[in-house]
Amino acid sequence: MMITSSSLKPGSAITGYGVARVLDSGDPNFREGELIWGTTGWEEYSLITTSSIRFKIQHTDVPLSNYTGIFGMPGITAYARFYEICSPKKGEHVSVSAASGAVGQLVGQFAKLMGCYVVGSVGSKEKVDLLKNKHGFNEAFNYKEEHELDAALKRCFPEGIDIYFDNVDGKMLDAILNMRTRGRIAACGMVSQYNLEQPESIKNLINIISKQVCIQGFVSHEQYHLYPQMLDTLLPYIREGKLVYVEDIAEGLERSPAALVGLFSGHNVGKQVAAVAHE
Amino acid sequence: MMITSSSLKPGSAITGYGVARVLDSGDPNFREGELIWGTTGWEEYSLITTSSIRFKIQHTDVPLSNYTGIFGMPGITAYARFYEICSPKKGEHVSVSAASGAVGQLVGQFAKLMGCYVVGSVGSKEKVDLLKNKHGFNEAFNYKEEHELDAALKRCFPEGIDIYFDNVDGKMLDAILNMRTRGRIAACGMVSQYNLEQPESIKNLINIISKQVCIQGFVSHEQYHLYPQMLDTLLPYIREGKLVYVEDIAEGLERSPAALVGLFSGHNVGKQVAAVAHE
Repeated sequence: MMITSSSLKPGSAITGYGVARVLDSGDPNFREGELIWGTTGWEEYSLITTSSIRFKIQHTDVPLSNYTGIFGMPGITAYARFYEICSPKKGEHVSVSAASGAVGQLVGQFAKLMGCYVVGSVGSKEKVDLLKNKHGFNEAFNYKEEHELDAALKRCFPEGIDIYFDNVDGKMLDAILNMRTRGRIAACGMVSQYNLEQPESIKNLINIISKQVCIQGFVSHEQYHLYPQMLDTLLPYIREGKLVYVEDIAEGLERSPAALVGLFSGHNVGKQVAAVAHE
Repeated sequence: MMITSSSLKPGSAITGYGVARVLDSGDPNFREGELIWGTTGWEEYSLITTSSIRFKIQHTDVPLSNYTGIFGMPGITAYARFYEICSPKKGEHVSVSAASGAVGQLVGQFAKLMGCYVVGSVGSKEKVDLLKNKHGFNEAFNYKEEHELDAALKRCFPEGIDIYFDNVDGKMLDAILNMRTRGRIAACGMVSQYNLEQPESIKNLINIISKQVCIQGFVSHEQYHLYPQMLDTLLPYIREGKLVYVEDIAEGLERSPAALVGLFSGHNVGKQVAAVAHE
């Protein structure tokens, strides 16, 4: 069984989206030996209820860990929300924050597949290189090395930003609110704000009136009706190498707590996965 | 001819949305004696180009001043944007700021006609009475007399807010961001911010993620394709008294500058109109 650290909150029950093989089942819909993904425990053997299961896993020619990422909750989040909220059009200028993360790396690549110009912001040189060389982003920058976010955005987006897929909130969102007319912001995450006593203030929200900007906040669930369509679309892309999904796998349950903590300071490169057991 | 102070900015050319009768015309589409509304000058006689004209006035059983308000730009703004952006449903809880103004009084009454629960915020007791007694709002409060906006909102909306039509920005927007899940905010005006050197900071924007709130900024133009439909809908409401539109008419060009300045401190009660000349 394999569990992932996503969607965990310190202090809550230790569960997360994970992949598991059914060893025994009281539900005739799930038979011994089948693979599923859904909410599982941080443990090698779990007793889970049917309602915790999202989907059976049918395609095993891709790594099972992918069902905690591109073919799991982060995948459906990126797939459903980027197209639905951002209404991307060919040639538009797209900004993604936490851009090498579980969701960000997908949003950027979806935008590239549509013919958009894509820039990612990340927290290390290694991640900048990853975005440019492996995920095909047009440009990327390390926000920790930029004295002025405004200047970095101006340099990377001389013509302005049409779409911002926001995984961080805070200063980055504030700077990007100076965007192009009819800009769209998908507000997905707030990783920069989790460990602050008070969220950072936003000064530029007033711009949304004259610029006719739309900001849509959302959480990841509720889009699972699109899952079969997403699989049909993304499986060929992965098999053909048109999409690359990077995972950062912490081996062993004993390494999982540190991996979880590392998420908040951006230690992970790619989707953080905790591998509790292998087949 | 009659002009209105709306859409004027200090320092810009002195024009505004107004009503005028054609005295002479070089365009065969506009004949002597016809009434029009569009962008006119602050003067008794104007030379205007065809592109400044929005529509000919066909219905003169209503006051001509209404074509600067309910049947003019504020009307189409309220009509198009409330239904389009706020997607109101019967029984929803609607908050309107600057609620006795040119746009606000209409939004509140549209919401009431839909069967929503409507509360307006305004800046005087006189306006509170107007909303409750003349426009049929469920509740209204004077924000200047509230020490804590959060407490006022909690008192008026014990079940929370689904829709906020924002004409003011600033502290009111920030307080209302603690709204119900899937809330919608139409960000239309920022009258509280016009005369500040720096716009006020927003602290609660982060709420939009977990609450899945949508904020759409917009400006008033671009919705004129809906104008004929709006007239067909609103003219009967006005004739039958189902809608009441309050105007604050400053008589004479010499009173117009003071009326314009008064807008920024909320001196007007209802849509501010400057009457330069009468028929």
